[in-house]
Amino acid sequence: MKHITSRDNAFYKGLLKLTGNARQRRKAGQTLLDGAHLVAAYHACGGKPLHLLHTGAALQNEEVAELLRLFPDVPQTLLDDALFAELSELKTVSGLLALVALPEADFAPERSGFCLLLEDIQDPGNLGSMLRSAAAAGCDAVFLSSGCADAWSPKVLRAAMGGHFVLNIVEDADLLMVAAHFGGSVFAASLAGKVTLFECDLRGRVGFAIGNEGAGLTAELQAVCQPFIIPMPGQVESLNAASAAAICVFEAVRQRN
Amino acid sequence: MKHITSRDNAFYKGLLKLTGNARQRRKAGQTLLDGAHLVAAYHACGGKPLHLLHTGAALQNEEVAELLRLFPDVPQTLLDDALFAELSELKTVSGLLALVALPEADFAPERSGFCLLLEDIQDPGNLGSMLRSAAAAGCDAVFLSSGCADAWSPKVLRAAMGGHFVLNIVEDADLLMVAAHFGGSVFAASLAGKVTLFECDLRGRVGFAIGNEGAGLTAELQAVCQPFIIPMPGQVESLNAASAAAICVFEAVRQRN
Repeated sequence: MKHITSRDNAFYKGLLKLTGNARQRRKAGQTLLDGAHLVAAYHACGGKPLHLLHTGAALQNEEVAELLRLFPDVPQTLLDDALFAELSELKTVSGLLALVALPEADFAPERSGFCLLLEDIQDPGNLGSMLRSAAAAGCDAVFLSSGCADAWSPKVLRAAMGGHFVLNIVEDADLLMVAAHFGGSVFAASLAGKVTLFECDLRGRVGFAIGNEGAGLTAELQAVCQPFIIPMPGQVESLNAASAAAICVFEAVRQRN
Repeated sequence: MKHITSRDNAFYKGLLKLTGNARQRRKAGQTLLDGAHLVAAYHACGGKPLHLLHTGAALQNEEVAELLRLFPDVPQTLLDDALFAELSELKTVSGLLALVALPEADFAPERSGFCLLLEDIQDPGNLGSMLRSAAAAGCDAVFLSSGCADAWSPKVLRAAMGGHFVLNIVEDADLLMVAAHFGGSVFAASLAGKVTLFECDLRGRVGFAIGNEGAGLTAELQAVCQPFIIPMPGQVESLNAASAAAICVFEAVRQRN
C-alpha cells in the first residue's frame, strides 16, 4: 500500500485541487466522496472508486475496514492525518475518501419520466437536499441551470446522502430547452396559479421547476410551466426552496401510490 | 441619534455577547434580528423592537429608511461599519439590526391545535427551515427538546424568514410530557409504521414528532407516537429532516384544504 506523507506528492496535489475547485472536478471528470456512508451508498449503486484514501486510524474502524474489503482491486493509499484533514471539509475526520469518476450525463429530457428542473439554486445544502428528495421520490433526472451550485462539491454530495448515484444529473442545462423537449408536463409554483398543487394531475410524466432561493424562477421559464400554488394557511407565506421541492415530488408520490 | 464608535462601549459589548451566545440571549431575554426582511416580518406581526442599530450607509437605503420610520419612538443607534460587521454573520452587511425581546412561551401543549415536536434537531438551517414550514402550514406551536440548536440564534432566525413571529416556540420542552398532555394525535415517521402518511387522518388536532438528523427519534418518544411511513419509491430511502417535516405538515394542509 502506498503511503503519502508529503504535501508535495503530485497525486496528493491533484486531489487537493479537486476538492476545492468545481472547474478542476469537471476538467478531471472526478470528485471525492467523503466518509463511509457515501462510499457505501456508492457501492450499493454499483459504483467502483478509482482510488481509496484513508488514515491509519480508519483501518481500526470496522465499518471502514469492511468497505475497503469490498473493493479488493481498487488502489488504496494511506494518508497522514494532517494531509487527510486538508482534503476534507468535515470537522470530525471521517478517515475514508473515495476518488470516483463523474458519471456521464444523459442530456435528453425526453428519456426522463419524472424530474426536477433547478434554476440557479445556490445553497449547496438546499441543492443536496433536493437531490436527496428527488432520489427518494423516484425521480430519474435532475437538470441544473449553469447558475446552480456545483452538484459534485463535497457539501452537495454530503447533503444528498447518495442521491447522486441514482439520478441522471445534468449540469449547465438550458432549462427552456429541457422544458421544450421533455414531452410531459412541467409544473412550477407561482402566485399566478389558479389551481393548487394538490389539484394538478401528477400521475404521468412530470417535471417540477424550482427557482432560485431569493429571486424565484425567471419569467421566461415560468412562462413555459404549468403554474400552481402551494396553499399556505399560516400567517407566513414562504417556504424554503428545498422544502417546496420535497412537498412537490412527494405529492406526486402520493398520487401514484 | 447616538453614535457608537468604540468596541469598549458597554451597550455594544452587551450586543456582541448576545449575538454569539445562546445562554446570554436567554439570560437577557433578547436577540438580534439581522436585515430589513426579518425586521419587516417582525413589524408585520405587530412586533416593536427595543432598539434599532444601523450603519451610516444603510440610511441611504430606501427599504431601511422606511423601516426606521415605522418605529418613530424606538431608540436608534448609528454603528461604525466595522462594529456593525462584528455583530452580523452575513457576508454582505445588511446595515440594519433590531434588538428585540424574546416572546414568552406558552408551555401548555393542550392549547395547541397543530404543532411540531422537534427532538435534538442540531443543524440551524434545518431548524429554521422547519419553523418556516410550520408557520406557512398554519402550525401554532413548535416544541423543542433541550438537545435542539438555539431557536433564536442568527442562523435559525435567518432560515425561518419570520416564522418565529407567528409561532409559540417552546424550548427545553419535555417532549414526552408534551405528547402526554397534547390531547390530539402525535404522529411520527417510523420504519415500523403499517400505514402511510397519506392514510393518516390529519384533519383534527395533530402534532408531528421529528427526530435528530442522524439518530432519528428516541425509542421513548417513538413509543408514544402513531407511526407512519413516507413511501419512498426511489432507490435511496432517505430524506432530510426538514424536507420530511415539510412533507408532513403540508399533507395535513392538503387534507384540511
